[in-house]
Amino acid sequence: MEIDLSKPILDRNERLAAENRARFDEAGVFVLDLMASPGAGKTSTILATIAALRERYSIAVIEGDIASRVDAEKVAAHGIPAVQINTGGACHLESDMIKRAIDALDLAALDLIIIENVGNLVCPTDFNLGEDAKVMILSVPEGHDKPYKYPGIFQVSEAIILNKVDTMPVFDFDEAEFTSVVKSLNPGAPIFRMAATKGDGVAAWAEWLAARIDAVKTAAGERA
Amino acid sequence: MEIDLSKPILDRNERLAAENRARFDEAGVFVLDLMASPGAGKTSTILATIAALRERYSIAVIEGDIASRVDAEKVAAHGIPAVQINTGGACHLESDMIKRAIDALDLAALDLIIIENVGNLVCPTDFNLGEDAKVMILSVPEGHDKPYKYPGIFQVSEAIILNKVDTMPVFDFDEAEFTSVVKSLNPGAPIFRMAATKGDGVAAWAEWLAARIDAVKTAAGERA
Repeated sequence: MEIDLSKPILDRNERLAAENRARFDEAGVFVLDLMASPGAGKTSTILATIAALRERYSIAVIEGDIASRVDAEKVAAHGIPAVQINTGGACHLESDMIKRAIDALDLAALDLIIIENVGNLVCPTDFNLGEDAKVMILSVPEGHDKPYKYPGIFQVSEAIILNKVDTMPVFDFDEAEFTSVVKSLNPGAPIFRMAATKGDGVAAWAEWLAARIDAVKTAAGERA
Repeated sequence: MEIDLSKPILDRNERLAAENRARFDEAGVFVLDLMASPGAGKTSTILATIAALRERYSIAVIEGDIASRVDAEKVAAHGIPAVQINTGGACHLESDMIKRAIDALDLAALDLIIIENVGNLVCPTDFNLGEDAKVMILSVPEGHDKPYKYPGIFQVSEAIILNKVDTMPVFDFDEAEFTSVVKSLNPGAPIFRMAATKGDGVAAWAEWLAARIDAVKTAAGERA
């Protein structure tokens, strides 16, 4: 019953997403929208990604949360520019929030912006922020049946990180079934097995991301 | 920016919630709205609760999901009436969905209806379904910082289940800090430590729920 009301919100969001997109293109910066449930390891993955790529790229982070700025503080402690967005209750980020956040960043000096979306497997799926790619994290404790129950987010993600793989012995996680369902929903998306807090599996993910960043920088160079 | 549009949705939801509420009162049935992230153990907790209380009470379950009916099938396999609601993308249940679900149940024959909301720590918070109580589950793998980041759901819940406590040795979960923040957000809410799939801690939770069910039945008896 929200269908009629959501259309104008989505239309406005798309318009502002296109404006963000144009600014990112002009600056030659790759923008990642990272989505996951609460507690799946978004911030840990961001910190691991920063550790893997900070020597090669100039990175900033936009942190989306309902409330608090604990994540932005964790990132800023590593010397990386971090902008906190508090959505004041909203369950996802929207383009106008990103627009205001990037006003606080020196886009031309950046190669990579990682947006940490609000912890939610549903709502962020529908909102284009102007990013280059959406990527999702599922953590092993959430269970292998999640692609059945939240198919949308698995379909819009260009890559899927399976995090906390070190806890697989503790949980009844059927990885073969998980992989099979994900492949049926989204055949082209790679699945990166990771234990972000331990650094396991981060290198393969970081190389995938680096290739995408390089492609954006090359394209921007050719346009300039 | 959604504030203006959400008000009519919430107003309509409240009106239908009141109609559900009146039907529950008339039938003397206690209705629980169970909320949690994806994978926190909602279905496992429901199955453990059914096992603990099915000899004493007549129970039905309403399963809310974006897609699939795997949870309703799990519940129905235990011989309990289960109604599946597929929200078709919506991130929470609303009163009119519950209205249609209870049309499929024999309310007068029931003592307890457990509603499994969509896996989400944000959106279900704002939607009154006509229930007697909202209760939330947080699972240990999600992390002890979640009350900081999703305070609303901790504030509206009348009890909080801390699930998967058997995995605490695997995760860096500061239970003292968790308890302290929950108590500051919601001083009156009990916290039930549980490992639902193993049955640990289910008895204390089930007794809390039984006391609430008995109070509703007594009140309905006095009105009759």
